[in-house]
Amino acid sequence: MSNKIYFTPGPAQLFYTFEEHLKRALFEDIPSISHRSKQFNAVVQQTTEALIELLNLPAGYQPYYINSANEAWDRIIQNLVKDSSHHFVNGAFSKKFFDFALAHNRSSSQTLVQDGEVFENWQIPVDAELIGITKNETSVGFTITEKEISELRVANKEKLIALDIVSALPGIETDFKNVDTAYFSVQKAFGMPAGLGVWIANERCHEVALKLSQNQSLGSYRALPNLKKFGDKYQTPETPNMLYIYLLGKIAEDMVKVGQKKIKNDTIYKSTILNQAIEDHPNLTHFVKSKDHRSKTTLVATSDKAEEIIKQFAQKGLILGSGYGKHAKNHIRIANFPTHSKESIEMVCDLMEK
Amino acid sequence: MSNKIYFTPGPAQLFYTFEEHLKRALFEDIPSISHRSKQFNAVVQQTTEALIELLNLPAGYQPYYINSANEAWDRIIQNLVKDSSHHFVNGAFSKKFFDFALAHNRSSSQTLVQDGEVFENWQIPVDAELIGITKNETSVGFTITEKEISELRVANKEKLIALDIVSALPGIETDFKNVDTAYFSVQKAFGMPAGLGVWIANERCHEVALKLSQNQSLGSYRALPNLKKFGDKYQTPETPNMLYIYLLGKIAEDMVKVGQKKIKNDTIYKSTILNQAIEDHPNLTHFVKSKDHRSKTTLVATSDKAEEIIKQFAQKGLILGSGYGKHAKNHIRIANFPTHSKESIEMVCDLMEK
Repeated sequence: MSNKIYFTPGPAQLFYTFEEHLKRALFEDIPSISHRSKQFNAVVQQTTEALIELLNLPAGYQPYYINSANEAWDRIIQNLVKDSSHHFVNGAFSKKFFDFALAHNRSSSQTLVQDGEVFENWQIPVDAELIGITKNETSVGFTITEKEISELRVANKEKLIALDIVSALPGIETDFKNVDTAYFSVQKAFGMPAGLGVWIANERCHEVALKLSQNQSLGSYRALPNLKKFGDKYQTPETPNMLYIYLLGKIAEDMVKVGQKKIKNDTIYKSTILNQAIEDHPNLTHFVKSKDHRSKTTLVATSDKAEEIIKQFAQKGLILGSGYGKHAKNHIRIANFPTHSKESIEMVCDLMEK
Repeated sequence: MSNKIYFTPGPAQLFYTFEEHLKRALFEDIPSISHRSKQFNAVVQQTTEALIELLNLPAGYQPYYINSANEAWDRIIQNLVKDSSHHFVNGAFSKKFFDFALAHNRSSSQTLVQDGEVFENWQIPVDAELIGITKNETSVGFTITEKEISELRVANKEKLIALDIVSALPGIETDFKNVDTAYFSVQKAFGMPAGLGVWIANERCHEVALKLSQNQSLGSYRALPNLKKFGDKYQTPETPNMLYIYLLGKIAEDMVKVGQKKIKNDTIYKSTILNQAIEDHPNLTHFVKSKDHRSKTTLVATSDKAEEIIKQFAQKGLILGSGYGKHAKNHIRIANFPTHSKESIEMVCDLMEK
């Protein structure tokens, strides 16, 4: 790796043990062994068990290996929605999930508010089968609170709830019992190269998919019943991204060793000093107005000097994220992921003071 | 890497320059840079240009980056088939493409012969919109000849032809003008870890997709028009497997430097001595009876001592492939890919003599 530190919210800084595990994986011929070998089954099992422990998944919530969060949107619509889903949209990624539903010809609906604004109205259309929410809207640094998710669950017992946990976990926690399915890509908080996604589904999802399969195509190799059939044997339907599944497992194990509590506490500490640095900076303002809804893992500030500030940091080897999409020139995004040490975040804060 | 040499037909032996390029990619922070940066656009452009040169793609045939050949089957059906495709099936992989079409609720048809048998009847149902053929049926070592493909083209000018080139190219050539779309995954002949696929489509495919889009969903982020929209700018719709796209480009460039002709000639030499070794072996028989249809890149022999022979080779660090699926215990499969040196194949032949 170069001497730069990437605070970009994905693709992001690699996890600090990444290269060590990569070397080991090559030594063990992980890219060349059969994906049907006992050796690789053991890899899938180890990664799955590490994820279940790290994310504290309840019984019956199983992770499946796909290629990205984008693919998760596809698979969720194909497998869990017959006619309509409902989406809470206040940023580019929550909007994309809604767009994917429309692209699959579902008559889905959305609760749309301005980017980074709080949702006041939590009414859901009666015919919506699944509700899409985003734990961390990476594009604008908005987080949905656990209280909001929990209330949504209570008010919508009969519907499925899908939670986007990209760039959120394991820096913060969520209670998976309040949702039925969740998904993430590994190139954000897990500090890996892009090209692997994880889709978590509970028993209710399997029941719904099975029921829908009687009247619609769920897709082919990655139809949920097929993922489950192979997943139950710690296999995948196709030759998967074996190397990344191995690396994800090793990194998840490392994170378990560090401890979920310590990762969470460090995330809070680092976000607190970053928040303070943003508040103290003459040219920066928090983009998300509601304090409770500011992301701890993706801090977003507005500034008319955003590009200039990002350039100044880059000269010191500290790569901050620019704004997403239409906010490209007016936002600074700073990732606060498990791989970012307290010291590296303190460096960012120190430079902000200057 | 360990001291073993993998002659398994995918996942397979890594290309001999793989680790060198991987180190460079990490040094250049390829996994951490933005997938929308100029630096990464240049990577996509370089990989695309290297592939076009290496595979000798005609003008208008553009490669797009997906995750596997499995995904290519999905995307081809979603984007290029309204009601029905027709598939030539004589092995597990050609069968899977047919199965995928059925899974997507198409009323597709097949010309089914025994595994590894020659197709005698090339009639295609009138209503088939697309014909699926397999250049190298990796499961049984059957190759379709250029003459057969060319005649199929002449007889079916109005239909699309999709060619599976997994494990075939660049060891052997094909004339892309005879087909409209083709696809491969990188973990076979390109000597890379699994997790990246390439889908090649020509102008006719884009026309068909656009027409079909008026009445059916083509999928979402990887709908062909969307791949083209981003691909034309050397971008991808989503954050792709950036590291592997970089590595594929570097390996393709290395192969261009070696020269398509030399790779092809070496493939012929190595397959010739392997064929001879199989014929001279008291316990081995070619599985594919027709000499013209025996694969040069995946040699398959039957033997009632297959497992024993594979074990003997493994003790010397030479990992041969076992049979695929129902042939698991009675076949030996030997990959002959560009990464396999003449010397390494000679070692296999020498050991066979003993």
